[in-house]
Amino acid sequence: MERAFVLYSRKAVTTPKFSLNDLPGAGRMDLVARCVISALWLSHRLREDTRIYCILEGPPEPPKAVVFSPEMRRVYPNERGVASWIRIALKEGRNEEWVSVNPGIRVAKKSLNSVVEELRDEGFEIYVLHEKGDPISSNEFGERVAFVLGDHIGLPENTERALMRKYGARALSLGKLSYLSSACITIVHYELDKREGFM
Amino acid sequence: MERAFVLYSRKAVTTPKFSLNDLPGAGRMDLVARCVISALWLSHRLREDTRIYCILEGPPEPPKAVVFSPEMRRVYPNERGVASWIRIALKEGRNEEWVSVNPGIRVAKKSLNSVVEELRDEGFEIYVLHEKGDPISSNEFGERVAFVLGDHIGLPENTERALMRKYGARALSLGKLSYLSSACITIVHYELDKREGFM
Repeated sequence: MERAFVLYSRKAVTTPKFSLNDLPGAGRMDLVARCVISALWLSHRLREDTRIYCILEGPPEPPKAVVFSPEMRRVYPNERGVASWIRIALKEGRNEEWVSVNPGIRVAKKSLNSVVEELRDEGFEIYVLHEKGDPISSNEFGERVAFVLGDHIGLPENTERALMRKYGARALSLGKLSYLSSACITIVHYELDKREGFM
Repeated sequence: MERAFVLYSRKAVTTPKFSLNDLPGAGRMDLVARCVISALWLSHRLREDTRIYCILEGPPEPPKAVVFSPEMRRVYPNERGVASWIRIALKEGRNEEWVSVNPGIRVAKKSLNSVVEELRDEGFEIYVLHEKGDPISSNEFGERVAFVLGDHIGLPENTERALMRKYGARALSLGKLSYLSSACITIVHYELDKREGFM
Protein backbone atom coordinates (compact mmCIF):
# COMPACT_ATOMS: atom_id res chain seq x y z
CA MET A 1 0.00 0.00 0.00
CA GLU A 2 1.32 3.41 -0.94
CA ARG A 3 0.57 6.22 1.51
CA ALA A 4 0.59 9.98 1.08
CA PHE A 5 -0.17 12.69 3.59
CA VAL A 6 -0.98 16.27 2.69
CA LEU A 7 -0.61 18.75 5.55
CA TYR A 8 -2.28 22.10 4.97
CA SER A 9 -0.49 24.64 7.14
CA ARG A 10 -2.31 27.94 7.06
CA LYS A 11 0.41 30.05 8.69
CA ALA A 12 3.77 28.34 8.05
CA VAL A 13 6.03 30.89 6.41
CA THR A 14 7.11 30.67 2.78
CA THR A 15 10.47 32.38 3.14
CA PRO A 16 13.77 30.70 4.09
CA LYS A 17 14.43 33.64 6.41
CA PHE A 18 13.09 32.12 9.59
CA SER A 19 15.04 31.26 12.71
CA LEU A 20 15.64 27.63 13.61
CA ASN A 21 15.59 28.86 17.23
CA ASP A 22 11.95 29.96 16.94
CA LEU A 23 10.02 27.45 14.86
CA PRO A 24 6.66 28.27 16.51
CA GLY A 25 7.22 31.90 15.46
CA ALA A 26 7.61 30.80 11.83
CA GLY A 27 3.89 29.99 11.62
CA ARG A 28 4.18 26.78 13.66
CA MET A 29 6.97 25.28 11.58
CA ASP A 30 7.55 23.00 14.61
CA LEU A 31 4.18 21.38 13.95
CA VAL A 32 5.03 20.90 10.26
CA ALA A 33 8.35 19.28 11.19
CA ARG A 34 6.70 16.91 13.71
CA CYS A 35 4.22 15.84 11.03
CA VAL A 36 7.10 14.99 8.69
CA ILE A 37 8.69 12.91 11.46
CA SER A 38 5.42 11.09 12.19
CA ALA A 39 4.85 10.39 8.50
CA LEU A 40 8.27 9.04 7.56
CA TRP A 41 10.11 7.55 10.50
CA LEU A 42 9.92 4.20 12.19
CA SER A 43 12.42 3.40 14.89
CA HIS A 44 15.83 3.20 13.16
CA ARG A 45 14.51 3.39 9.60
CA LEU A 46 12.34 5.29 7.19
CA ARG A 47 8.96 4.01 6.02
CA GLU A 48 8.97 2.93 2.40
CA ASP A 49 6.17 3.90 0.02
CA THR A 50 5.23 6.96 2.05
CA ARG A 51 5.48 10.67 1.38
CA ILE A 52 4.22 13.84 2.98
CA TYR A 53 3.40 17.08 1.21
CA CYS A 54 3.56 20.19 3.39
CA ILE A 55 1.47 22.98 1.90
CA LEU A 56 2.73 26.22 3.41
CA GLU A 57 0.26 29.08 3.24
CA GLY A 58 1.95 31.73 5.37
CA PRO A 59 3.63 34.95 4.20
CA PRO A 60 5.32 36.18 2.08
CA GLU A 61 4.81 34.01 -1.02
CA PRO A 62 2.12 31.38 -0.50
CA PRO A 63 1.52 28.73 -1.52
CA LYS A 64 4.62 26.57 -1.43
CA ALA A 65 4.57 22.78 -1.38
CA VAL A 66 7.47 20.79 0.06
CA VAL A 67 7.38 17.01 -0.24
CA PHE A 68 9.49 14.59 1.83
CA SER A 69 9.95 10.98 0.75
CA PRO A 70 12.10 8.07 2.02
CA GLU A 71 14.80 8.60 -0.62
CA MET A 72 16.00 11.55 1.45
CA ARG A 73 19.49 11.55 2.92
CA ARG A 74 21.09 13.33 5.87
CA VAL A 75 17.75 14.31 7.37
CA TYR A 76 17.44 13.71 11.09
CA PRO A 77 14.17 13.13 12.93
CA ASN A 78 14.00 16.19 15.12
CA GLU A 79 12.15 19.47 14.61
CA ARG A 80 15.24 21.53 13.90
CA GLY A 81 16.72 18.95 11.53
CA VAL A 82 13.58 18.75 9.41
CA ALA A 83 12.97 22.51 9.52
CA SER A 84 16.50 23.19 8.28
CA TRP A 85 15.62 21.22 5.12
CA ILE A 86 12.36 23.15 4.72
CA ARG A 87 14.45 26.30 4.91
CA ILE A 88 16.73 25.02 2.15
CA ALA A 89 13.71 24.03 0.06
CA LEU A 90 12.16 27.49 0.44
CA LYS A 91 15.12 29.02 -1.39
CA GLU A 92 13.72 27.28 -4.49
CA GLY A 93 10.24 26.52 -5.78
CA ARG A 94 9.52 29.72 -7.64
CA ASN A 95 7.23 28.03 -10.15
CA GLU A 96 4.92 25.04 -10.65
CA GLU A 97 7.67 22.56 -11.55
CA TRP A 98 9.00 20.36 -8.76
CA VAL A 99 12.63 21.15 -7.90
CA SER A 100 14.76 18.62 -6.01
CA VAL A 101 16.83 19.93 -3.07
CA ASN A 102 17.82 16.48 -1.73
CA PRO A 103 17.16 13.07 -3.34
CA GLY A 104 13.92 12.80 -1.38
CA ILE A 105 12.90 16.43 -0.91
CA ARG A 106 11.24 18.54 -3.60
CA VAL A 107 9.59 21.92 -3.64
CA ALA A 108 7.23 23.76 -6.00
CA LYS A 109 4.88 26.72 -6.04
CA LYS A 110 1.79 24.58 -5.79
CA SER A 111 -1.50 24.88 -3.95
CA LEU A 112 -3.34 22.20 -1.98
CA ASN A 113 -5.71 21.67 -4.91
CA SER A 114 -2.89 21.24 -7.36
CA VAL A 115 -1.13 18.64 -5.15
CA VAL A 116 -4.35 16.71 -4.54
CA GLU A 117 -5.07 16.76 -8.28
CA GLU A 118 -1.63 15.26 -8.94
CA LEU A 119 -2.29 12.53 -6.39
CA ARG A 120 -5.72 11.78 -7.83
CA ASP A 121 -4.13 11.55 -11.31
CA GLU A 122 -1.58 9.09 -9.89
CA GLY A 123 -4.48 6.91 -8.79
CA PHE A 124 -4.61 7.79 -5.11
CA GLU A 125 -7.89 7.61 -3.20
CA ILE A 126 -8.30 10.94 -1.41
CA TYR A 127 -9.40 11.12 2.24
CA VAL A 128 -9.93 14.09 4.53
CA LEU A 129 -9.52 13.61 8.27
CA HIS A 130 -12.49 15.01 10.14
CA GLU A 131 -14.07 14.24 13.52
CA LYS A 132 -17.46 13.88 11.80
CA GLY A 133 -16.33 11.48 9.05
CA ASP A 134 -16.87 7.71 8.84
CA PRO A 135 -14.82 5.69 11.33
CA ILE A 136 -11.41 4.85 9.88
CA SER A 137 -11.43 1.43 11.51
CA SER A 138 -14.23 0.12 9.27
CA ASN A 139 -13.02 1.66 6.01
CA GLU A 140 -11.69 -0.49 3.16
CA PHE A 141 -8.66 1.02 1.50
CA GLY A 142 -7.20 0.57 -1.98
CA GLU A 143 -3.54 0.33 -2.91
CA ARG A 144 -2.80 4.07 -3.01
CA VAL A 145 -4.27 6.25 -0.31
CA ALA A 146 -3.80 9.95 0.43
CA PHE A 147 -4.90 11.76 3.59
CA VAL A 148 -5.40 15.51 3.73
CA LEU A 149 -5.25 17.14 7.15
CA GLY A 150 -5.03 20.60 8.64
CA ASP A 151 -2.69 22.13 11.18
CA HIS A 152 -3.82 23.51 14.55
CA ILE A 153 -6.24 25.84 12.73
CA GLY A 154 -7.69 23.07 10.59
CA LEU A 155 -8.82 22.88 6.99
CA PRO A 156 -11.08 25.70 5.82
CA GLU A 157 -14.61 24.32 5.36
CA ASN A 158 -14.89 25.41 1.75
CA THR A 159 -11.57 23.73 0.98
CA GLU A 160 -12.91 20.49 2.45
CA ARG A 161 -16.07 20.73 0.42
CA ALA A 162 -14.07 21.47 -2.74
CA LEU A 163 -11.89 18.40 -2.19
CA MET A 164 -15.00 16.26 -1.89
CA ARG A 165 -16.66 17.77 -4.95
CA LYS A 166 -13.67 17.91 -7.28
CA TYR A 167 -11.65 14.87 -6.26
CA GLY A 168 -14.19 12.58 -4.64
CA ALA A 169 -12.50 12.96 -1.25
CA ARG A 170 -14.19 11.12 1.62
CA ALA A 171 -14.15 12.19 5.26
CA LEU A 172 -12.74 9.72 7.77
CA SER A 173 -12.76 10.07 11.55
CA LEU A 174 -10.21 8.90 14.13
CA GLY A 175 -12.76 9.28 16.92
CA LYS A 176 -14.32 12.07 18.90
CA LEU A 177 -11.10 13.55 20.24
CA SER A 178 -9.26 16.21 18.34
CA TYR A 179 -5.67 14.96 18.13
CA LEU A 180 -2.52 16.87 17.25
CA SER A 181 -1.85 16.73 13.48
CA SER A 182 1.29 14.64 14.06
CA ALA A 183 -0.73 12.20 16.20
CA CYS A 184 -3.37 11.91 13.44
CA ILE A 185 -0.65 10.80 11.03
CA THR A 186 0.65 8.20 13.51
CA ILE A 187 -2.85 6.83 14.05
CA VAL A 188 -3.57 6.58 10.31
CA HIS A 189 -0.31 4.67 9.84
CA TYR A 190 -1.22 2.37 12.72
CA GLU A 191 -4.67 1.63 11.27
CA LEU A 192 -3.14 0.88 7.85
CA ASP A 193 -0.35 -1.22 9.40
CA LYS A 194 -3.02 -3.36 11.06
CA ARG A 195 -4.68 -3.95 7.69
CA GLU A 196 -1.36 -4.89 6.12
CA GLY A 197 -0.82 -7.59 8.70
CA PHE A 198 1.71 -5.87 10.92
CA MET A 199 -0.32 -6.72 14.01
CA MET B 1 -8.99 5.99 33.38
CA GLU B 2 -5.75 7.41 34.68
CA ARG B 3 -2.71 7.00 32.43
CA ALA B 4 0.99 7.20 33.16
CA PHE B 5 3.93 6.79 30.81
CA VAL B 6 7.48 6.11 31.93
CA LEU B 7 10.13 6.85 29.31
CA TYR B 8 13.52 5.33 30.02
CA SER B 9 16.11 7.42 28.21
CA ARG B 10 19.50 5.79 28.42
CA LYS B 11 21.55 8.75 27.16
CA ALA B 12 19.59 11.92 27.92
CA VAL B 13 21.87 14.19 29.93
CA THR B 14 21.32 14.97 33.60
CA THR B 15 22.83 18.44 33.62
CA PRO B 16 21.04 21.72 32.81
CA LYS B 17 24.09 22.72 30.78
CA PHE B 18 22.91 21.54 27.40
CA SER B 19 22.16 23.68 24.38
CA LEU B 20 18.57 24.15 23.24
CA ASN B 21 20.07 24.45 19.74
CA ASP B 22 21.36 20.88 19.84
CA LEU B 23 18.83 18.64 21.56
CA PRO B 24 19.98 15.47 19.73
CA GLY B 25 23.47 16.16 21.10
CA ALA B 26 22.09 16.18 24.65
CA GLY B 27 21.48 12.43 24.51
CA ARG B 28 18.43 12.69 22.26
CA MET B 29 16.62 15.22 24.42
CA ASP B 30 14.53 15.93 21.26
CA LEU B 31 13.09 12.42 21.56
CA VAL B 32 12.28 12.95 25.23
CA ALA B 33 10.53 16.23 24.42
CA ARG B 34 8.46 14.67 21.62
CA CYS B 35 7.35 11.93 24.00
CA VAL B 36 6.15 14.56 26.47
CA ILE B 37 4.19 16.25 23.68
CA SER B 38 2.63 12.94 22.57
CA ALA B 39 1.69 12.05 26.13
CA LEU B 40 0.08 15.30 27.20
CA TRP B 41 -1.30 17.28 24.30
CA LEU B 42 -4.49 17.03 22.37
CA SER B 43 -5.25 19.69 19.80
CA HIS B 44 -5.78 22.94 21.76
CA ARG B 45 -5.77 21.37 25.19
CA LEU B 46 -3.93 19.11 27.59
CA ARG B 47 -5.08 15.60 28.40
CA GLU B 48 -6.44 15.24 31.89
CA ASP B 49 -5.48 12.33 34.14
CA THR B 50 -2.22 11.73 32.30
CA ARG B 51 1.41 12.13 33.28
CA ILE B 52 4.75 11.17 31.84
CA TYR B 53 7.89 10.39 33.79
CA CYS B 54 11.14 10.89 31.90
CA ILE B 55 13.93 8.86 33.44
CA LEU B 56 17.20 10.40 32.30
CA GLU B 57 20.19 8.08 32.50
CA GLY B 58 22.89 10.09 30.70
CA PRO B 59 25.89 11.85 32.26
CA PRO B 60 26.87 13.42 34.59
CA GLU B 61 24.49 12.55 37.46
CA PRO B 62 22.08 9.78 36.54
CA PRO B 63 19.41 8.95 37.30
CA LYS B 64 17.07 11.93 37.26
CA ALA B 65 13.30 11.67 36.91
CA VAL B 66 11.26 14.56 35.54
CA VAL B 67 7.48 14.24 35.52
CA PHE B 68 5.08 16.36 33.44
CA SER B 69 1.38 16.53 34.26
CA PRO B 70 -1.54 18.62 32.95
CA GLU B 71 -1.37 21.12 35.81
CA MET B 72 1.65 22.65 34.09
CA ARG B 73 1.54 26.25 32.89
CA ARG B 74 3.43 28.16 30.20
CA VAL B 75 4.72 25.03 28.54
CA TYR B 76 4.42 24.97 24.76
CA PRO B 77 4.18 21.83 22.65
CA ASN B 78 7.40 21.99 20.70
CA GLU B 79 10.74 20.30 21.34
CA ARG B 80 12.55 23.44 22.43
CA GLY B 81 9.71 24.56 24.68
CA VAL B 82 9.54 21.27 26.55
CA ALA B 83 13.33 20.88 26.69
CA SER B 84 13.70 24.32 28.24
CA TRP B 85 11.57 23.09 31.16
CA ILE B 86 13.65 19.93 31.47
CA ARG B 87 16.69 22.20 31.70
CA ILE B 88 15.05 24.17 34.50
CA ALA B 89 14.09 20.94 36.27
CA LEU B 90 17.67 19.63 36.05
CA LYS B 91 18.86 22.51 38.22
CA GLU B 92 16.99 20.77 41.05
CA GLY B 93 16.37 17.17 42.00
CA ARG B 94 19.43 16.48 44.06
CA ASN B 95 17.69 13.91 46.24
CA GLU B 96 14.84 11.42 46.32
CA GLU B 97 12.15 13.95 47.23
CA TRP B 98 10.06 15.35 44.38
CA VAL B 99 10.69 19.09 43.86
CA SER B 100 8.20 21.21 41.96
CA VAL B 101 9.59 23.59 39.30
CA ASN B 102 6.19 24.48 37.77
CA PRO B 103 2.71 23.51 39.05
CA GLY B 104 2.79 20.42 36.83
CA ILE B 105 6.51 19.64 36.58
CA ARG B 106 8.51 17.87 39.29
CA VAL B 107 11.98 16.42 39.48
CA ALA B 108 13.78 14.00 41.78
CA LYS B 109 16.87 11.84 41.89
CA LYS B 110 14.94 8.65 41.23
CA SER B 111 15.58 5.54 39.18
CA LEU B 112 13.17 3.72 36.87
CA ASN B 113 12.57 1.10 39.55
CA SER B 114 11.79 3.68 42.16
CA VAL B 115 9.26 5.45 39.90
CA VAL B 116 7.59 2.20 38.90
CA GLU B 117 7.39 1.20 42.56
CA GLU B 118 5.65 4.48 43.35
CA LEU B 119 3.16 3.89 40.57
CA ARG B 120 2.51 0.33 41.68
CA ASP B 121 1.93 1.62 45.23
CA GLU B 122 -0.58 4.13 43.82
CA GLY B 123 -2.48 1.20 42.34
CA PHE B 124 -1.32 1.41 38.74
CA GLU B 125 -1.16 -1.72 36.57
CA ILE B 126 2.31 -1.79 35.02
CA TYR B 127 2.82 -2.59 31.34
CA VAL B 128 5.98 -2.76 29.27
CA LEU B 129 5.77 -2.09 25.53
CA HIS B 130 7.47 -4.81 23.56
CA GLU B 131 7.04 -6.17 20.02
CA LYS B 132 6.77 -9.67 21.43
CA GLY B 133 4.13 -8.93 24.07
CA ASP B 134 0.41 -9.69 23.94
CA PRO B 135 -1.57 -7.56 21.47
CA ILE B 136 -2.72 -4.34 23.10
CA SER B 137 -6.00 -4.42 21.20
CA SER B 138 -7.30 -7.44 23.11
CA ASN B 139 -6.08 -6.41 26.57
CA GLU B 140 -8.50 -5.45 29.32
CA PHE B 141 -7.32 -2.48 31.33
CA GLY B 142 -8.12 -1.33 34.85
CA GLU B 143 -8.65 2.23 36.03
CA ARG B 144 -4.99 3.16 36.49
CA VAL B 145 -2.53 2.04 33.86
CA ALA B 146 1.18 2.78 33.47
CA PHE B 147 3.29 2.03 30.39
CA VAL B 148 7.06 1.75 30.50
CA LEU B 149 8.92 2.26 27.24
CA GLY B 150 12.46 2.79 26.06
CA ASP B 151 14.03 5.41 23.83
CA HIS B 152 15.75 4.61 20.51
CA ILE B 153 18.07 2.20 22.31
CA GLY B 154 15.23 0.42 24.10
CA LEU B 155 14.85 -0.98 27.59
CA PRO B 156 17.71 -3.18 28.81
CA GLU B 157 16.52 -6.79 28.89
CA ASN B 158 17.36 -7.29 32.54
CA THR B 159 15.42 -4.14 33.42
CA GLU B 160 12.40 -5.54 31.60
CA ARG B 161 12.66 -8.83 33.41
CA ALA B 162 13.05 -7.06 36.74
CA LEU B 163 9.90 -5.00 36.12
CA MET B 164 7.99 -8.18 35.44
CA ARG B 165 9.35 -9.99 38.46
CA LYS B 166 9.16 -7.19 41.00
CA TYR B 167 6.07 -5.27 39.92
CA GLY B 168 4.09 -7.82 37.93
CA ALA B 169 4.59 -5.84 34.73
CA ARG B 170 3.08 -7.40 31.61
CA ALA B 171 4.42 -7.01 28.06
CA LEU B 172 2.06 -5.56 25.47
CA SER B 173 2.68 -5.25 21.75
CA LEU B 174 1.56 -2.58 19.30
CA GLY B 175 2.30 -4.87 16.36
CA LYS B 176 5.34 -6.11 14.49
CA LEU B 177 6.69 -2.73 13.52
CA SER B 178 9.07 -0.89 15.75
CA TYR B 179 7.61 2.58 16.15
CA LEU B 180 9.25 5.76 17.41
CA SER B 181 8.79 6.13 21.18
CA SER B 182 6.56 9.18 20.67
CA ALA B 183 4.42 7.20 18.20
CA CYS B 184 4.09 4.34 20.73
CA ILE B 185 2.62 6.80 23.23
CA THR B 186 0.16 8.16 20.65
CA ILE B 187 -0.96 4.63 19.75
CA VAL B 188 -1.45 3.60 23.40
CA HIS B 189 -3.58 6.70 23.96
CA TYR B 190 -5.60 5.90 20.84
CA GLU B 191 -6.23 2.33 21.97
CA LEU B 192 -7.32 3.52 25.42
CA ASP B 193 -9.46 6.31 23.93
CA LYS B 194 -11.32 3.66 21.90
CA ARG B 195 -12.05 1.72 25.06
CA GLU B 196 -13.29 4.84 26.82
CA GLY B 197 -15.81 5.43 24.07
CA PHE B 198 -14.12 8.23 22.19
CA MET B 199 -14.61 6.40 18.89
